Amino acid sequence: MNELDVPKGFKFSVVNAGFRKKSRNDLALAVSDRPATAAACFTQAAFKAAPVLIGQEIIAAGRPCRAVMINSGQANACTGEQGLKNCRRTLELLSRSSGIEASEVLPASTGVIGNQFDMGLWEKAVPQLNAELGKCGYVDFANAIMTTDRFFKAAGTKAELKSGTVTMLGMAKGAGMICPNMATMLAVLLCDAEIGREAWQRIVSRAVELSFNRASVDGDTSTNDTIYALANGASGVAVSTDDEEVLLEAVTGVLKQLAYMLVQDGEGATKVMLIKISGAGSAADAEAAARTIGHSLLVKTAMFGQDPNWGRIIAALGRSGAKFRPDDVVLTLGGVVLFKNGTPVYNSDPPQVVDALKQQDIPIELSLGAGSFSYEFMASDLGHGYVTINADYRS
Amino acid sequence: MNELDVPKGFKFSVVNAGFRKKSRNDLALAVSDRPATAAACFTQAAFKAAPVLIGQEIIAAGRPCRAVMINSGQANACTGEQGLKNCRRTLELLSRSSGIEASEVLPASTGVIGNQFDMGLWEKAVPQLNAELGKCGYVDFANAIMTTDRFFKAAGTKAELKSGTVTMLGMAKGAGMICPNMATMLAVLLCDAEIGREAWQRIVSRAVELSFNRASVDGDTSTNDTIYALANGASGVAVSTDDEEVLLEAVTGVLKQLAYMLVQDGEGATKVMLIKISGAGSAADAEAAARTIGHSLLVKTAMFGQDPNWGRIIAALGRSGAKFRPDDVVLTLGGVVLFKNGTPVYNSDPPQVVDALKQQDIPIELSLGAGSFSYEFMASDLGHGYVTINADYRS
Repeated sequence: MNELDVPKGFKFSVVNAGFRKKSRNDLALAVSDRPATAAACFTQAAFKAAPVLIGQEIIAAGRPCRAVMINSGQANACTGEQGLKNCRRTLELLSRSSGIEASEVLPASTGVIGNQFDMGLWEKAVPQLNAELGKCGYVDFANAIMTTDRFFKAAGTKAELKSGTVTMLGMAKGAGMICPNMATMLAVLLCDAEIGREAWQRIVSRAVELSFNRASVDGDTSTNDTIYALANGASGVAVSTDDEEVLLEAVTGVLKQLAYMLVQDGEGATKVMLIKISGAGSAADAEAAARTIGHSLLVKTAMFGQDPNWGRIIAALGRSGAKFRPDDVVLTLGGVVLFKNGTPVYNSDPPQVVDALKQQDIPIELSLGAGSFSYEFMASDLGHGYVTINADYRS
Repeated sequence: MNELDVPKGFKFSVVNAGFRKKSRNDLALAVSDRPATAAACFTQAAFKAAPVLIGQEIIAAGRPCRAVMINSGQANACTGEQGLKNCRRTLELLSRSSGIEASEVLPASTGVIGNQFDMGLWEKAVPQLNAELGKCGYVDFANAIMTTDRFFKAAGTKAELKSGTVTMLGMAKGAGMICPNMATMLAVLLCDAEIGREAWQRIVSRAVELSFNRASVDGDTSTNDTIYALANGASGVAVSTDDEEVLLEAVTGVLKQLAYMLVQDGEGATKVMLIKISGAGSAADAEAAARTIGHSLLVKTAMFGQDPNWGRIIAALGRSGAKFRPDDVVLTLGGVVLFKNGTPVYNSDPPQVVDALKQQDIPIELSLGAGSFSYEFMASDLGHGYVTINADYRS
């Protein structure tokens, strides 16, 4: 990966606070040199981790923010009142060292559910974190927030707006949509555009819907899932109403790259299924069909086995609840039409399909012939690695 | 397992028709010596196999039936018009040999999706199947319909009705709710009670709802799932309206035993999770919570690993869509309360829970404190065996 440009006015810091068994950097900070417009998306799960509840409070207040602080090793989820108190204390610690208001710092955590923070470690680490600001880059940040991830995840782009160029940079972690005890998908998007709060939240929400919400490793969502997006205006380029479409496209592009990396790094995953439903009778039908196929254990294991076992894709579509006439369905796997008019096209697997399944990206396309709605969804395969990681994680 | 009593008036036959790679019995027949009231439940999937479509026709006609004929090795699914023609021909072949009307024979198939029957094999096998009638027992029948199953599945009971005793016997196959190419859950229930069609269908539908529909290996449903139930009246005992509750209980008991065996024999499974949701605000909430937990890959792999990783159960509940206040939830795993008032009860795993997870049956109980609705659900764990069987099946 080429070095990515960091948007103007942002600095990073990481330290090894000792939150994890393995000695490695586990506390990360991104700071804007000026107040930034903040937007966020959070887990929809009913059990929300302490940093999610507090992050929601800060975002709801609607004021500009200055920093995002993320720890790995402990999720601070299912930790009750004490967990909330501990999370607030970490923000005060940063405020005391840095002079940034505690209400301008967005928190996120990832790691084991149900354990309380060791606050002694935080008291020691946070002043050091502040002292180190600017001494590392985004790659260190992206590495420090990883848990079971095999590689760090970062993506960036520039957008040409009416009055100039803005830069954006995203970093994410996650190797299951919920990584077991090591809960969570986290992402941070930094941008140096100048933009109002409502427009920024609208753009970020829509981009998340088009990217992270269309990717899955195991269908589980976490107590801690969080995306924070800061736009600090340091480029001097203000976003006009006319620019919003261009900016949305750029943000979506960056988040899609990160979402692809999450699926690619799915626990035990070897494949990325690129599922495309077209011709559905409704948007809901298109989405249901895509998700059912992407979550089917039988489809996922077939892809892991590089087995062009298309009957499983058809069976998953058949139980998705999407409406269609079976005879109108056309299944294309790896670019080859395998099923139409209710019957198989070939009596044995075409060599082109066998070859296609050896690749990392597997295109699965279904045309339902029932309307004009479509949906795209990315999902990993399911292999022995997933079972090994998740059956043996804590032991 | 003790020898089960066969209801009066039923005989069995099996032959090796050569439908499978492995040489073993693969065609099975159950015949009633007199017309029997027939009820059935079929897959809800949009792609229905030829024997499902034809079975639905026969059941819809509402006439008594005489026989159930089941083959393993070929699913006759996604086979279009030719598949329907072939299925009808198999019924005519039996009719020609046995004198039973083709419209009184209920067909079912399980095996590879998308291949047409080799009709030459059928022409040879069916007369032999008829000639062998009565020379084997229900254990041979239950064995001949197996695919990836590790053991045959049969259960039976007697019910004491107002005017006498009736006997019932069920046989089933299935090791995934859809076993991949070896598609399908199939079950046959035989009973010697005398009962009208509407009452019998009502009892069977309700019993299926309380048994098979509350059990899952992998959440996939098949193109071929079928349950046929024949009540032939050979006991001379007529079912009165007052008897229906007793009969429902007996049928439900037999089907629950079969459903338990399906989960126990889940591909690669080592555990049966007995999930019980109580205190839900609605029936739908209770069901959604139970199913989400039973289908969660993270919960399933934790159980396989015998890991009391209860945070995953809480996380699955949290994304189920069920309504509750997190502080009201009580989680009991293996008989020990692990989570209540929004916080963990223990800081480390109690030995009693560690021991409980070493057993085959794992009780998982969640009280939501939101109402009075409950739901029970059985689900298997997820281990390496599932991946091996399903990634490597066709190769």
